[in-house]
Amino acid sequence: MNAMVDVHQNTGPAERRRIRTGAFTGPTSGLAPGNVQANLVVLPRDLAHDFLRFAQANPRPCPVLAVSDAGSPHFPSLGHDIDIRTDLPRYRVWRDGELVEEPTDVIHAWRGDLVGFAIGCSFSFEEALLADGIDVRHITRNCNVPMYRTNIPCVPAGVFSGPMVVSMRPMKPADAIRAVQITSRFPSVHGAPVHLGLPEAIGIADISKPDYGDAVPVEPGELPVFWACGVTPQAVIAQVKPEFCITHAPGMMLITDLRNTKLAVL
Amino acid sequence: MNAMVDVHQNTGPAERRRIRTGAFTGPTSGLAPGNVQANLVVLPRDLAHDFLRFAQANPRPCPVLAVSDAGSPHFPSLGHDIDIRTDLPRYRVWRDGELVEEPTDVIHAWRGDLVGFAIGCSFSFEEALLADGIDVRHITRNCNVPMYRTNIPCVPAGVFSGPMVVSMRPMKPADAIRAVQITSRFPSVHGAPVHLGLPEAIGIADISKPDYGDAVPVEPGELPVFWACGVTPQAVIAQVKPEFCITHAPGMMLITDLRNTKLAVL
Repeated sequence: MNAMVDVHQNTGPAERRRIRTGAFTGPTSGLAPGNVQANLVVLPRDLAHDFLRFAQANPRPCPVLAVSDAGSPHFPSLGHDIDIRTDLPRYRVWRDGELVEEPTDVIHAWRGDLVGFAIGCSFSFEEALLADGIDVRHITRNCNVPMYRTNIPCVPAGVFSGPMVVSMRPMKPADAIRAVQITSRFPSVHGAPVHLGLPEAIGIADISKPDYGDAVPVEPGELPVFWACGVTPQAVIAQVKPEFCITHAPGMMLITDLRNTKLAVL
Repeated sequence: MNAMVDVHQNTGPAERRRIRTGAFTGPTSGLAPGNVQANLVVLPRDLAHDFLRFAQANPRPCPVLAVSDAGSPHFPSLGHDIDIRTDLPRYRVWRDGELVEEPTDVIHAWRGDLVGFAIGCSFSFEEALLADGIDVRHITRNCNVPMYRTNIPCVPAGVFSGPMVVSMRPMKPADAIRAVQITSRFPSVHGAPVHLGLPEAIGIADISKPDYGDAVPVEPGELPVFWACGVTPQAVIAQVKPEFCITHAPGMMLITDLRNTKLAVL
């Protein structure tokens, strides 16, 4: 045995086990380094098709990594043992658009008509940015990424419609250009930025007042760089007020066995 | 026969023949669509090694497509019949840093110790931008691209040193992001932008006053996007004042048989 890091080590199953048994109930950021983490949305079958059409039409904010069979809590393509009823540290359960509980498992709330969606998360591309030596401000400051509702409309599908939500990372221009190159390789986790500079051009009146998450400073010599954000589907679902819905609690993601590097298209 | 465009048609040899015989003496922009056009620099062998080291260390402003044997006016890798003494519409001949003539051939000025350099040109990536539907302002306005001396130093090599010159194209942010993706595929013709937004951060005091070329407006909702420019080596050579040098006259490029699409690295 030595101290060398095995870059191929998959600690996903072990972390899910800790979470499943209740031994870990915190945010998943930093767990199972190199593994893809996913946003979770669970909807009744009646809404699932419209939601999937919405995601298909809006792949930048809603990149779908997996869809479960109706009634099945498994995502075999993301990890053979995954049970989405128990494998996230904390959930949000919604009834008629109201948040009714934030449990650590949803076995009691599961139904035979539920369809689960695993949606790509910016953790994957942030790992690639950090690996390239680019400062990711909210990580450096140990806070949540700032997110903003924009005036960019999503393509509507069925009952689902609404504006795109974006996350923002301030960068020097040369880093912003490099970040476009790096994140373009990861279309299944939001891909390239959708905008940079000029926040007012996408309906952001005050960059210091995010609609979600925490404000971070844009320093002199930096540009705000905006990516489509996985909060978009949650914001859109909140408008629809489905009779029943389960999501992950913020920051409490599904840890998969996929490797971030495997998501790179080139 | 029909009117369908043969996208693989190589009209490079025919255009060079027109130019070689003196039948055409104008700017080469738009000639031999799809073919790579190149900047030309010809230096005495004594300076050639330092210049090539300079280009090697500064590939963004000085992407070398071919280097001739000393005394040879041929670039067989760019076209089997190319003779750089006759195949450009107009030349500039420099002695001790002074422009002494602008002839349509340089047979009379050729020497056995001269080394020719073909250097990539932005025409290649502009073709890719236009093909993607991106507005390239100076082309739309039928003027020269605006170029600026920056405070970005080139890596010195031997007698050659100086600041990077950049060209500027104003774009909406989403087009700027797309332009990063497109031009990243073409590292041998300047590649991705080196900067965008914030001209003052690279020492450009007034975007409306380019150091070379023509000013173009940056409209509200647009960012200036900056690429390393092939004028950089010419500006650097001008400072060195070599006892002898030949360059192409501005806009009067070497038309090669290479296809722009073949320069794409992916």
